[in-house]
Amino acid sequence: MSEFLRVALFGTHFMGRAHSNAWRSAPTYFDLSRSVVMEAAVGLEREQVRAFAEQWGWDGASTNWRRTVEQSPIDLVDLCVPNDKHAELAIAALEAGRHVLCEKPLAGTLDDARAMRDAAKKAARGGLKAIVSFNYRRCPALAYAHQLVKVGKLGRIYHVRAHYLQDWGGPDTPLLWRFKSKHAGSGAHGDLNAHIIDAARFVTGDEISEVSGAIEETFIKERPLPPEEQGRGGKGKAGKRTGRSSVDDALLFLARFKGGAVASFEASRLATGHQNRNVIELNGEKGSLRFDFERMNELQWWDNTIDPGLRGWSRIMCTTGGAHPYVDAYWPAAHLIGYEHTFISQAADVVKLLAGGEPVVPLADFADGFETQRVLHAAVVSARERRPVKLSEVK
Amino acid sequence: MSEFLRVALFGTHFMGRAHSNAWRSAPTYFDLSRSVVMEAAVGLEREQVRAFAEQWGWDGASTNWRRTVEQSPIDLVDLCVPNDKHAELAIAALEAGRHVLCEKPLAGTLDDARAMRDAAKKAARGGLKAIVSFNYRRCPALAYAHQLVKVGKLGRIYHVRAHYLQDWGGPDTPLLWRFKSKHAGSGAHGDLNAHIIDAARFVTGDEISEVSGAIEETFIKERPLPPEEQGRGGKGKAGKRTGRSSVDDALLFLARFKGGAVASFEASRLATGHQNRNVIELNGEKGSLRFDFERMNELQWWDNTIDPGLRGWSRIMCTTGGAHPYVDAYWPAAHLIGYEHTFISQAADVVKLLAGGEPVVPLADFADGFETQRVLHAAVVSARERRPVKLSEVK
Amino acid sequence: MSEFLRVALFGTHFMGRAHSNAWRSAPTYFDLSRSVVMEAAVGLEREQVRAFAEQWGWDGASTNWRRTVEQSPIDLVDLCVPNDKHAELAIAALEAGRHVLCEKPLAGTLDDARAMRDAAKKAARGGLKAIVSFNYRRCPALAYAHQLVKVGKLGRIYHVRAHYLQDWGGPDTPLLWRFKSKHAGSGAHGDLNAHIIDAARFVTGDEISEVSGAIEETFIKERPLPPEEQGRGGKGKAGKRTGRSSVDDALLFLARFKGGAVASFEASRLATGHQNRNVIELNGEKGSLRFDFERMNELQWWDNTIDPGLRGWSRIMCTTGGAHPYVDAYWPAAHLIGYEHTFISQAADVVKLLAGGEPVVPLADFADGFETQRVLHAAVVSARERRPVKLSEVK
Amino acid sequence: MSEFLRVALFGTHFMGRAHSNAWRSAPTYFDLSRSVVMEAAVGLEREQVRAFAEQWGWDGASTNWRRTVEQSPIDLVDLCVPNDKHAELAIAALEAGRHVLCEKPLAGTLDDARAMRDAAKKAARGGLKAIVSFNYRRCPALAYAHQLVKVGKLGRIYHVRAHYLQDWGGPDTPLLWRFKSKHAGSGAHGDLNAHIIDAARFVTGDEISEVSGAIEETFIKERPLPPEEQGRGGKGKAGKRTGRSSVDDALLFLARFKGGAVASFEASRLATGHQNRNVIELNGEKGSLRFDFERMNELQWWDNTIDPGLRGWSRIMCTTGGAHPYVDAYWPAAHLIGYEHTFISQAADVVKLLAGGEPVVPLADFADGFETQRVLHAAVVSARERRPVKLSEVK
Repeated sequence: MSEFLRVALFGTHFMGRAHSNAWRSAPTYFDLSRSVVMEAAVGLEREQVRAFAEQWGWDGASTNWRRTVEQSPIDLVDLCVPNDKHAELAIAALEAGRHVLCEKPLAGTLDDARAMRDAAKKAARGGLKAIVSFNYRRCPALAYAHQLVKVGKLGRIYHVRAHYLQDWGGPDTPLLWRFKSKHAGSGAHGDLNAHIIDAARFVTGDEISEVSGAIEETFIKERPLPPEEQGRGGKGKAGKRTGRSSVDDALLFLARFKGGAVASFEASRLATGHQNRNVIELNGEKGSLRFDFERMNELQWWDNTIDPGLRGWSRIMCTTGGAHPYVDAYWPAAHLIGYEHTFISQAADVVKLLAGGEPVVPLADFADGFETQRVLHAAVVSARERRPVKLSEVK
Repeated sequence: MSEFLRVALFGTHFMGRAHSNAWRSAPTYFDLSRSVVMEAAVGLEREQVRAFAEQWGWDGASTNWRRTVEQSPIDLVDLCVPNDKHAELAIAALEAGRHVLCEKPLAGTLDDARAMRDAAKKAARGGLKAIVSFNYRRCPALAYAHQLVKVGKLGRIYHVRAHYLQDWGGPDTPLLWRFKSKHAGSGAHGDLNAHIIDAARFVTGDEISEVSGAIEETFIKERPLPPEEQGRGGKGKAGKRTGRSSVDDALLFLARFKGGAVASFEASRLATGHQNRNVIELNGEKGSLRFDFERMNELQWWDNTIDPGLRGWSRIMCTTGGAHPYVDAYWPAAHLIGYEHTFISQAADVVKLLAGGEPVVPLADFADGFETQRVLHAAVVSARERRPVKLSEVK
Repeated sequence: MSEFLRVALFGTHFMGRAHSNAWRSAPTYFDLSRSVVMEAAVGLEREQVRAFAEQWGWDGASTNWRRTVEQSPIDLVDLCVPNDKHAELAIAALEAGRHVLCEKPLAGTLDDARAMRDAAKKAARGGLKAIVSFNYRRCPALAYAHQLVKVGKLGRIYHVRAHYLQDWGGPDTPLLWRFKSKHAGSGAHGDLNAHIIDAARFVTGDEISEVSGAIEETFIKERPLPPEEQGRGGKGKAGKRTGRSSVDDALLFLARFKGGAVASFEASRLATGHQNRNVIELNGEKGSLRFDFERMNELQWWDNTIDPGLRGWSRIMCTTGGAHPYVDAYWPAAHLIGYEHTFISQAADVVKLLAGGEPVVPLADFADGFETQRVLHAAVVSARERRPVKLSEVK
Repeated sequence: MSEFLRVALFGTHFMGRAHSNAWRSAPTYFDLSRSVVMEAAVGLEREQVRAFAEQWGWDGASTNWRRTVEQSPIDLVDLCVPNDKHAELAIAALEAGRHVLCEKPLAGTLDDARAMRDAAKKAARGGLKAIVSFNYRRCPALAYAHQLVKVGKLGRIYHVRAHYLQDWGGPDTPLLWRFKSKHAGSGAHGDLNAHIIDAARFVTGDEISEVSGAIEETFIKERPLPPEEQGRGGKGKAGKRTGRSSVDDALLFLARFKGGAVASFEASRLATGHQNRNVIELNGEKGSLRFDFERMNELQWWDNTIDPGLRGWSRIMCTTGGAHPYVDAYWPAAHLIGYEHTFISQAADVVKLLAGGEPVVPLADFADGFETQRVLHAAVVSARERRPVKLSEVK
């Protein structure tokens, strides 16, 4: 095994920035067994990629993805491209002998996801890893929740309650690509429910067996075209041209877990007042847990086994070195970390995994990503066919 | 109209206490146009009723409900009896020319509820009122939420999210009558979902058009028999006799409102850490509201129309005289009121209504109670027939 | 001992209402060994007293306090009159052989307080009780805090932090009697600091040994006269007559406890946004506690002896029957109680004490009231003489 | 002006890490007009400095501070060394023509601070900048508070309430250098009160005119020696050697501001349950603000000018691009930032200032640092001489 891990990044927008920052920072915060080499960033427009590469510390910049995948001396391809590109690029990278880290959701469609899962299975024989970037797993508070459940602190789980609510999708928000089904696959569903389905699987260690009652809703059916698509008249007030949204603004569903828990999931871009409310709660026989990303350094914990007079929702600041995962790498107790640290810790765990080690908490692999995709798919079927859908139906 | 309002109470347990306290206290806190006479309490066991009547200030005590309804000089029958008795007693009272105040849910079954609604409609011609005690409408914070929505502070409503979670139903809780379908009708569903369905109707001013995906779950299928049913052997450890629970421990469903909002509802008795978590949240185009009964004096409010930099979830202490409903009757700002005051304010509004006045916020009548019952019924059908149910199906 | 406890109330305003409600309600909620007879209310204006007595259930109404004290068949005099009347009435009542319950602070001046303490000591030989109404001791959460400290859950106490903040005293608030030193003695200090000094003594079980650095501030030096004092011109805009405030709007001081804790106290009527923020926090070696009256059903608790990973501020809902003081008398778990219940529980404890029993948590007697008065006095001396003041100086 | 800004860092421990991270990250997040060159890290032990420099990206490593200051091609000296070294190094650097960024507090003693202030004044004539690193000014929420006060949203300020509470200083914490007055100057006082005094000056825009009643307390007088000082016997249980702490564990004081506000300040290392509770609150005539570093992305805001029914404490998530300072450089709304970002934004503002621009909110210069030092000094005098101290006394 080389002492270097050479990485190429595909995609130079929001996620590209978060991943770039992770690759440049993980070696600083963590004592890694392999040196990260930020080989190249790959994007669509030459100038933009060059500027991006310079800003974020990538040695090279390219617009030719295939050449990078096939001919560059890279170990890992990091995919931060639109969902409909995941399958093509990930499979090509695996076939070229590269490890893959792919942004969530695994794919835009179940077929793509299945193909990726299969390619990963095949590549695994050659020692390749295929990982999905479910970054929230590495919020220390959520990782700690996973650990607490694993050692049995909750006992039998009765309830799972998860929602991921945002509010940027009001009627004035223009018809960006995210509102076009062709490019985005879905709206809030694939973007947000993917996160909380993975979080639920990760924290409970259990699998969903059935979804029911899904509601798929597009509240804002017509949106103003973006300024660049308004045409000449669009610059003035007269140019209020609009277009049709083809994705969901919100998708809710209920579910059952194999282990017996009942669950609710909800994603929305029109939940006024919730800017990034990624919440999961578990109620168990022996205790309950609640995580809210808007207070990501905290975990709410109810211990049902102590003196009844002392029971309460306890706000644990998950920043205690030695006690909470990942935080030793950063700052002292209650000197908070933020969103980007979930990616930094993830990068460190990826390096660890590729060096034969064990991540602090499990990374999601493509098989995990496929399980989440099956649930996403089942929810859409439930909404459109107006019936419960057993996961066993979704192959 | 008499200057007196003579009341008879039926039922001498938890709700009987809450209503008794309301009748004895409303005249103290509010300036009522009719004097309340607490004529008689009616129960099942002579000694218990007598002691109850003395404790709570009822002039008489009786175990003969029919005689009280038909022959006593009473104006209003207040029903705090099990759900399966509501129809018989309420209809008899209306036919005997008495106003009726009936605890929620309106009935144990849709048929009962319909009959009651019809009886109330008929009695209304004679000037009789038939009211359902949805006491939470008179939490000042929830009443204020109703007023804010009514004057348009939320604009178009996108989301309704409601749950009523309790946690007293763990595996050690014995097989009380509340776990027997014959007596209780349902479990958490009728007890708790009834409250939040009414709250959703009350605050939104809208009606549910469809429910879907309902999950009805009995987590604890066998429970220990109560001590008095253990028999001789039951006193020792050997006597751990159990019986089968025949009601739901939790019932969740999704819904659509006529006005376009999508919604989720959940009731549970096994939501560890939530002792009495009655929560409703609305997300609208112009603002959002959230009410949590465990902090009943507060309303969370997000104003989406102000300077973006200043937007936030605002915790309004709904205790300001002149600004918030009902609170002028009680104590100065932030000198909190509690659960019982919802019943006191309700009693005051009932007196006002019967005197020809207008309650501060609407009281639920039997037609309202029937609407809620239709939704309860639709949710059970959805759970059992595994399909969405339009409310138009439920007559 | 009589089976009756005959009470006379002096004072028919805010506190008179709270105490009246307590006397009428305690026998309903608690199983008392003596029957409370609400013998008479005593006030200044005949019509107002009569109306008050009828509203709140007093058998008689009087404007002759001396006759009531000396000639009525009463067991207990309940004083809800201005501070400058406490000494005269309380001493007369004790000398007439009546028990006394006196609103806080014990008096307007140290001299008055000392005389009352001495009179109570003397009367105690005849079996008479003299109690100060520090009602917040009977918030279940604060009473529970007292119990937790008493059994050693905090270990050595390092810090006490208390403030009682209100915000009704802005520049538009007229020059009520509360802003006149002659009648009120002091402003926020006697009104609010009295409460938190008593709370600190009650919860810690310790005594203050020194105060230092006190700041006494009158932010609003001129206030509009009340409408009734504006004179003819006052009705119009021209009549903006003002008068000089002669009391503090805020008083802050630091303190040391005999047991070694350091402390801060603050009272204000101009703490914008804090309507009734009565807060006390203790930090000890083994744990910490925090109480905030605006969420009076809750106690915040930090257990410093458990697994570091699980430590957090735990929000205990102090409503659990069997576990938390007083709540068995009221409603089920998390069915909140309010401000008035502190007085109801106090009335029940007073009856218990007079019947020879033990209150659930200690009632403050006149010796306690005098201790608090000494601290109030020391703080004023510290502010005016600009120096630390040892409590041993204040006799 | 060069297009490069060459920086040397002095100090390679906690603060050295935070500053290093800032210098390496500021150019990534911000569009800076000068390129930051991380020239050299300077420390005490060769190996440690080398490893540190490599980890954090410094081009060179040195143990010779004087040579670095005097002979290296550097523009800015960044001081993260113990307080008693600040004066010597900062003055030498200024005299050598370097800009200086110095960790807070400005110095360990008033004399040192004065000398530094004077040296900075002199150096300013040559265009040199001397800045104190009060990093919390660049929490977006605190910077926003500063802006809101500045535009008059609070009106007249009545109250300032600040505390900085930590709890790592329990009896088991060994006698580190931080507990030795010779090295640390003071304990919690200089470390923590320095932050909140600066925060109070920064947010109010006002100056303290007098402090009073200060309490300086060393709760834990004897502490175990650190393992390396235990000697041979120290390794076993028998070796429990202890030493005397010579600094405060807590220091509280009250204060008055020139503008009329009254204030309280408190710092502690034994406030169990508060790991890093840096809190400041202002109550003004038109509104109130509260910041708590443990929820650093949030600002609590009370608007006293709106409809009374809608007033409440509003939790503003200070992460909205375009509305809140600094956040445009980082992530989307409610994708939280952490402790380290305060240093990154500070580094960016330093570069901006040195390039002739205007920081987003003011940086503290040595004159500011001296003002804070005067208050720290006055508080110690107040504690030791047991009297109020006017700031005009402290030259």
